[in-house]
Amino acid sequence: MLSSPIPVAVLGATGSVGQRFISLLDNHPWFKVVALAASDRSEGKPYAQACHWVLTDPMPDWAREMPLLPSNPQAMPEVKIVFSALPSDQAKILEPAFAAAGFAVCSNASSYRTESDVPLLLPEVNAEHIQLVRHQRLARGWSGCIITNPNCTSTGLTVALKALDQAFGVKRAFVVSLQALSGAGYPGVPSLDILDNIIPNINGEEEKVEWEPRKMLGRFNGDAIELAQVQISAHTNRVAVLDGHTVCASVELGSFASPQEASEVLRAYQAPEIARGLPSAPQPVIVVRTEADRPQPRLDRLTGGGMSTVVGRVRSDPLLTLKFVVLSHNTIRGAAGGSIYNAELFVSQGLL
Amino acid sequence: MLSSPIPVAVLGATGSVGQRFISLLDNHPWFKVVALAASDRSEGKPYAQACHWVLTDPMPDWAREMPLLPSNPQAMPEVKIVFSALPSDQAKILEPAFAAAGFAVCSNASSYRTESDVPLLLPEVNAEHIQLVRHQRLARGWSGCIITNPNCTSTGLTVALKALDQAFGVKRAFVVSLQALSGAGYPGVPSLDILDNIIPNINGEEEKVEWEPRKMLGRFNGDAIELAQVQISAHTNRVAVLDGHTVCASVELGSFASPQEASEVLRAYQAPEIARGLPSAPQPVIVVRTEADRPQPRLDRLTGGGMSTVVGRVRSDPLLTLKFVVLSHNTIRGAAGGSIYNAELFVSQGLL
Amino acid sequence: MLSSPIPVAVLGATGSVGQRFISLLDNHPWFKVVALAASDRSEGKPYAQACHWVLTDPMPDWAREMPLLPSNPQAMPEVKIVFSALPSDQAKILEPAFAAAGFAVCSNASSYRTESDVPLLLPEVNAEHIQLVRHQRLARGWSGCIITNPNCTSTGLTVALKALDQAFGVKRAFVVSLQALSGAGYPGVPSLDILDNIIPNINGEEEKVEWEPRKMLGRFNGDAIELAQVQISAHTNRVAVLDGHTVCASVELGSFASPQEASEVLRAYQAPEIARGLPSAPQPVIVVRTEADRPQPRLDRLTGGGMSTVVGRVRSDPLLTLKFVVLSHNTIRGAAGGSIYNAELFVSQGLL
Amino acid sequence: MLSSPIPVAVLGATGSVGQRFISLLDNHPWFKVVALAASDRSEGKPYAQACHWVLTDPMPDWAREMPLLPSNPQAMPEVKIVFSALPSDQAKILEPAFAAAGFAVCSNASSYRTESDVPLLLPEVNAEHIQLVRHQRLARGWSGCIITNPNCTSTGLTVALKALDQAFGVKRAFVVSLQALSGAGYPGVPSLDILDNIIPNINGEEEKVEWEPRKMLGRFNGDAIELAQVQISAHTNRVAVLDGHTVCASVELGSFASPQEASEVLRAYQAPEIARGLPSAPQPVIVVRTEADRPQPRLDRLTGGGMSTVVGRVRSDPLLTLKFVVLSHNTIRGAAGGSIYNAELFVSQGLL
Repeated sequence: MLSSPIPVAVLGATGSVGQRFISLLDNHPWFKVVALAASDRSEGKPYAQACHWVLTDPMPDWAREMPLLPSNPQAMPEVKIVFSALPSDQAKILEPAFAAAGFAVCSNASSYRTESDVPLLLPEVNAEHIQLVRHQRLARGWSGCIITNPNCTSTGLTVALKALDQAFGVKRAFVVSLQALSGAGYPGVPSLDILDNIIPNINGEEEKVEWEPRKMLGRFNGDAIELAQVQISAHTNRVAVLDGHTVCASVELGSFASPQEASEVLRAYQAPEIARGLPSAPQPVIVVRTEADRPQPRLDRLTGGGMSTVVGRVRSDPLLTLKFVVLSHNTIRGAAGGSIYNAELFVSQGLL
Repeated sequence: MLSSPIPVAVLGATGSVGQRFISLLDNHPWFKVVALAASDRSEGKPYAQACHWVLTDPMPDWAREMPLLPSNPQAMPEVKIVFSALPSDQAKILEPAFAAAGFAVCSNASSYRTESDVPLLLPEVNAEHIQLVRHQRLARGWSGCIITNPNCTSTGLTVALKALDQAFGVKRAFVVSLQALSGAGYPGVPSLDILDNIIPNINGEEEKVEWEPRKMLGRFNGDAIELAQVQISAHTNRVAVLDGHTVCASVELGSFASPQEASEVLRAYQAPEIARGLPSAPQPVIVVRTEADRPQPRLDRLTGGGMSTVVGRVRSDPLLTLKFVVLSHNTIRGAAGGSIYNAELFVSQGLL
Repeated sequence: MLSSPIPVAVLGATGSVGQRFISLLDNHPWFKVVALAASDRSEGKPYAQACHWVLTDPMPDWAREMPLLPSNPQAMPEVKIVFSALPSDQAKILEPAFAAAGFAVCSNASSYRTESDVPLLLPEVNAEHIQLVRHQRLARGWSGCIITNPNCTSTGLTVALKALDQAFGVKRAFVVSLQALSGAGYPGVPSLDILDNIIPNINGEEEKVEWEPRKMLGRFNGDAIELAQVQISAHTNRVAVLDGHTVCASVELGSFASPQEASEVLRAYQAPEIARGLPSAPQPVIVVRTEADRPQPRLDRLTGGGMSTVVGRVRSDPLLTLKFVVLSHNTIRGAAGGSIYNAELFVSQGLL
Repeated sequence: MLSSPIPVAVLGATGSVGQRFISLLDNHPWFKVVALAASDRSEGKPYAQACHWVLTDPMPDWAREMPLLPSNPQAMPEVKIVFSALPSDQAKILEPAFAAAGFAVCSNASSYRTESDVPLLLPEVNAEHIQLVRHQRLARGWSGCIITNPNCTSTGLTVALKALDQAFGVKRAFVVSLQALSGAGYPGVPSLDILDNIIPNINGEEEKVEWEPRKMLGRFNGDAIELAQVQISAHTNRVAVLDGHTVCASVELGSFASPQEASEVLRAYQAPEIARGLPSAPQPVIVVRTEADRPQPRLDRLTGGGMSTVVGRVRSDPLLTLKFVVLSHNTIRGAAGGSIYNAELFVSQGLL
């Protein structure tokens, strides 16, 4: 599609999400990683030396010797897009600096998700929100921009809710997550805390899961996002799973749907036209499993290369309308893969 | 209290719940195990030889050489009370045979829980339901009886709901369980299925969790139990935890309660007077943890010797009234310990 | 290479090794699975219905509807090669029946490994032992034959020992295994036995690990195998790892080698010429890791598609000559993949 | 035994070994904890606030409000004995300062274990080495002293070797450890590194396991320790077990012993007379299990309150004389409990 690859950088490249960016950008058809940045104490070191690689897929050879740059715009002159795997406190400060300097920042950090002029984007859900970028540039006087993807637990849930919302309306949802260890980064959760155990809390997570879907399911009225009216109650838990967040959800629909009807709607769900056919677009968007005991994180997290949302156990709910289980790969669809998909949409819409 | 110990037997003695019965009955102040029964192929073998002991507490010495008896009433003439750790299909047939032959059957099996004249009993919740035994004997012409304890996931949940129901009324509850491996018995869940994984379903469990609390929270009108009106929606999951079932619950109360008020009510909850002071009565009934990340199964499951219910994270729910987390030891309070507590209530009420 | 694919069958197709055969034979360039057999109670059922699939790679579509056949030669007339994932007691009886009926049986079972006329084969180690098939056919009057691969723990160990033996001689070895759960099949090890635990014994395993390498490192003198003189002491343990057996080894060499020299020899090791270039031949045979903490089963088990042997921590031994760690994928190189590689060698040598 | 309790302090009190000291010293018959010290940034905070408690046994109430002191001798005037759970770099500097100031330092750190005038002590093995304290005081001009306990993996191994050495002589040993997570402290091993995995290396551990037993099995000639001649080769591994180090050992004895004879010797082993009857003395010193699959860390680590050494699978070794498996609780016998037992011996010998 492109005559020459678009040069990109990864900020926070040594962390676990940073590693996933590097792994997913290896052989990307549009993007070429030309710069890796990390904290000051790693500056100048070859990537392989500064990074404790935790993925099963091996570190790409091109990354091994790449010297780590400082996280500032001056350090990476040729780059057009920066992928941010920064912790939220650093993202808060650095991402606007990059945007002001003309970079498109595709961020996995939570720092700007709630800003009214920043797209919170799942292309298969709300691709049209990408247009907020124009308002953001005007309002802030930036030649670059910030585009965010949601929290990893909000991700799969919102994809499923979108399919149902479009067909039946979604009014309320109860959701309980069983979240993987990789969601906490590296070193993250100590083994002494989680072996033969669960931790029934993840700081700040429930607020995100209760709010973010409302923005993504909201309507872009040409100026701003009108938050969707859906109300969500969330409990979040950490469990001894390496990758893949599972969410148990009960939802009240606007109009009745049988489990069979809902399953068909979920299975048939298509991304908005502008979000289809992009290199990272999930194929299919949603897989519906019919076995009594699926989805399971270890068996199903790599469905569609880790970009598909997997739904199972669709059944009637005695209080609301439906119950089901949603699984999504938290560091692929829910983090690095999501930011990359966002960047693809951004480029394909001529916004670069 | 008693001049001489009451002779008791354990049915299904070699399974994991059977083992827990033996461990908890070791040095029991009222009961003395005089017979152990198991499937026919183990008949006559010494217990230590027929049993793959899975508990960390060692097998009591008195049990090691006890020969396994067949599971029939004729085989155990001196016994007054039998504790049943039978699988439900066998319990269906054998428990009535024992009851008809004059034995009090304190059962952990699900086979008779839904019968209108069979007590489904958590003494700290509905001790007065023990009186159903008189109706059961009349109706069925039995000199013995069957008394059941609820499903292990219903157990802690119902204790917490009872405290709230008594103070504020409970109208609806949405609950998601994260259940321990020991709940599936031995050999139970294959390690290949659960390492780095969860299983988002437990056959038949959700129906029990949605119905059993209604019977236990129901009112005994002198003749029968009037089911409580509370409506429950349940999702049940298996996780890689050895012991201790965790339940995330959101509840709608009849009248408003702040998290603070609810915590106080939970903490102050007392068992009905006739259920206090029994050897297995939990001390206290409910422990409320105030840390952000508790209860955790590995750290909290042995609270009160595994008989207390532990509640934490009591907070407001955006859709209903409150959210909280409940932990209960599934093979102690939720199985063998529960049956023993039931037997103690039964004896103390002069029903033997 | 072949004009038309060779029709093959899998015996014991529903078990975990049987599944691995099916997964590895999917799109095999030479072999086409035309029959699947399992125990009598599954006969006639479609494979997908009779099988609890435990691999992360999905079940190939062609296998789903294939009806399960009984495990007898008459049931599969067109087949030339049968891959046996049978339990050893069944293999003992059924494999000779297939061999007598003209089938080449490539077996993962231990039943015939110790027979003097049956090749115990790792093509990258002792490819020339395949010639024993001629003696076997003569001696037993079979038109078919039985070819075996070693125990999964012997596998990687023997590959490493071979490289060292060829260069320096190997006189003695002390080995301790940390074996994966999948080595015990499905359902295999109960989760209650292995979470937060190890099991320091695997029945019958130590005898195999102490003897099998002697046969494979032995010399084929044209008539028979002369057992190698290496003496081995083995301890075997089960640990909470899904796939990948790790072996800690200390060895006494015939002539001195520094860790550096040994690493170079291991890294440079080549399979015998007739075993190279086959579809399942490991590329490379041995990978030597130089990090202080590798190989690790989760990170390294899929090296070379699970067919390579991974060695690390090569260092001096204070009692013998060298210490090192060996990792091998137990259900790929150590089981199904090994049998397939054997079959490839057998076919390429014109023995079919 | 004592008229009034001896005031003691714990250095490094907030770490995982520090916590174990506090737990084991709760209700100790001789010692009373009057001071807790930690790093400077915790100074002045109540213990419960500064400490992330990781033990299943709850934090003793007396410790909760105890303010953390700085780690220097002036801060704790009344104290006689300090238990050191310091990291080795801090221990290197601080322990001599305490010893010089008159405190008896019972240390779990490795910093001074190899000094010729510092006892490396397992009372049930080499109680008489406590006399080195007199030489140490003379040589260094200290009124206090430093007494060390060995590395957690050396501990159980050395107890077993001692029993065999005394009866038969021990000439050589091959040992491979499977070590628990708690041995790495807290936060220690990240869960992402160990779930579905092993780590085949622990920095610096193999050197300790190869050397420390030689000192403890050595003879005190009145002046110094003559190192024992036993030669040891060690491989050390981290596995997903919470507590309890397992060691697979093969040993060459000075004179032949059958597995039966060795088992009897192990079972009958008694501590030196001066080390018996102390409050923390293991009862018995060694438990020999005869089942084919024991010891297992989860089931056997608390044998004798975590102070006994558990040996199993005693059998012939094809290269040396015997093979067996040793289990020892790494944070009780192998760390805090060991230091406390050392302090008891020290006090009982009138050295305080």
